[in-house]
Amino acid sequence: MSESTGPEFVQSLARGLAVIRAFDADHATLTLSDVSRRADLPRAAARRFLQTLQTLGYVRSDGRDFALTPRVLELGFSYLSALSLPAVAQPHLERLSRQIDESVSAAVRDGHDIVYVARVPTRRIMSVGITIGTRFPAYATSMGRVLLAAEPEERIAELIGAARPEPLTPRTRTDVDVLEAELARVREQGWALVDEELERGLRSLAVPVHGRDGSVVAAVNVSASARGDVDEWRDRCLPPLIAAAAAIDAELRLL
Amino acid sequence: MSESTGPEFVQSLARGLAVIRAFDADHATLTLSDVSRRADLPRAAARRFLQTLQTLGYVRSDGRDFALTPRVLELGFSYLSALSLPAVAQPHLERLSRQIDESVSAAVRDGHDIVYVARVPTRRIMSVGITIGTRFPAYATSMGRVLLAAEPEERIAELIGAARPEPLTPRTRTDVDVLEAELARVREQGWALVDEELERGLRSLAVPVHGRDGSVVAAVNVSASARGDVDEWRDRCLPPLIAAAAAIDAELRLL
Repeated sequence: MSESTGPEFVQSLARGLAVIRAFDADHATLTLSDVSRRADLPRAAARRFLQTLQTLGYVRSDGRDFALTPRVLELGFSYLSALSLPAVAQPHLERLSRQIDESVSAAVRDGHDIVYVARVPTRRIMSVGITIGTRFPAYATSMGRVLLAAEPEERIAELIGAARPEPLTPRTRTDVDVLEAELARVREQGWALVDEELERGLRSLAVPVHGRDGSVVAAVNVSASARGDVDEWRDRCLPPLIAAAAAIDAELRLL
Repeated sequence: MSESTGPEFVQSLARGLAVIRAFDADHATLTLSDVSRRADLPRAAARRFLQTLQTLGYVRSDGRDFALTPRVLELGFSYLSALSLPAVAQPHLERLSRQIDESVSAAVRDGHDIVYVARVPTRRIMSVGITIGTRFPAYATSMGRVLLAAEPEERIAELIGAARPEPLTPRTRTDVDVLEAELARVREQGWALVDEELERGLRSLAVPVHGRDGSVVAAVNVSASARGDVDEWRDRCLPPLIAAAAAIDAELRLL
């Protein structure tokens, strides 16, 4: 776990959060020993954190195995509700999804990743189930490219470097110069199209969402199976996508 | 904040989580004083917790105002991905939603509340935007009634009592005896219909989802505008809803 400290650093909080993050899809229930190992904590400390989380209602236990409770969602919910974007975007995304009969999403950037904050799925097209909180590397996604393109050039180079691009499919662009040129184009044209660079068989088209001060605060996209002519698909989806983003922009300005 | 302690209770962890929960829709950015007041902490302690959360990447600041970052979603995501239910349910919910052209959801019970863990919205029908993590009182919702009905009778009385039912609409059933009789009917028939008891103009229909051991672990529902004949609507939605839940049950048994 993180050892980045200072005199003001509250180690107990960092460790407690590491205990929560010790649980995931492959580790839905953990024993005390598991938690101790996965959170890199002495057994006695792991026990204290688990008991504290249990008292607070974030963890339940049958005496041997521990699991997270739905209360943990409230922590993420603090972020989502504070963001206001998901609530504003959701009805516009629903309308857009019905209009073009495709899955639509909204995401924000966190470092070199994008994080989904709203989604209206139509049918499953990706191998991975996407939910609120799902992350992907920004460089390989249409929303990520829109969000990266909004950054100053030196910051872009830094973020791409930190992400260490790798070929997720044979079509993934990983060369920093190529990516930077693509981002310049995205900034110019106002949209990003990614065709089978994140996953085979998947294409997506994204445009930016702007906050009150005009800065890019999020991106919305349409994603679909990579079947048929890509230019035709883009021509069909881009106008309603731009209109939806403009409506979200307008509503965010009113807040 | 909670003062439930014991020799093993890690107060710093409880306080740090209270700092995260100090942020919400009406308090997206907070000053140090705000956090101190809302988390009920001395100013110096609030500063230490905020700095720790900032070091860990959960909070950002411009020096004066503090806000949560998308990283906070990862905490809730630990729960969601550990649950496996959302990933299993999502494609079935998407199919069901397309089939009947209505919004569908899945929820689990947390005490006397239900918490949404998956959702496929079609159009906005509620006054409140629903997202993953949204809570409603179990007694007034179709999914909540399915989940309460699965509990032992003495536990049901306890949970309803703790929820302190109140009339959310003129049609909300709040009498404990009436609710218990309704839950007995729900248990018998295997589904719950709630018509304008949670919100005017909204009706919903829920059935249980079973875990490997046959116990009820979640509920799935269809929700729609309360227009037209309710029996006709139920007759149209119930068979595909039952089929979707059965498919989810079958897949959960294979895990």
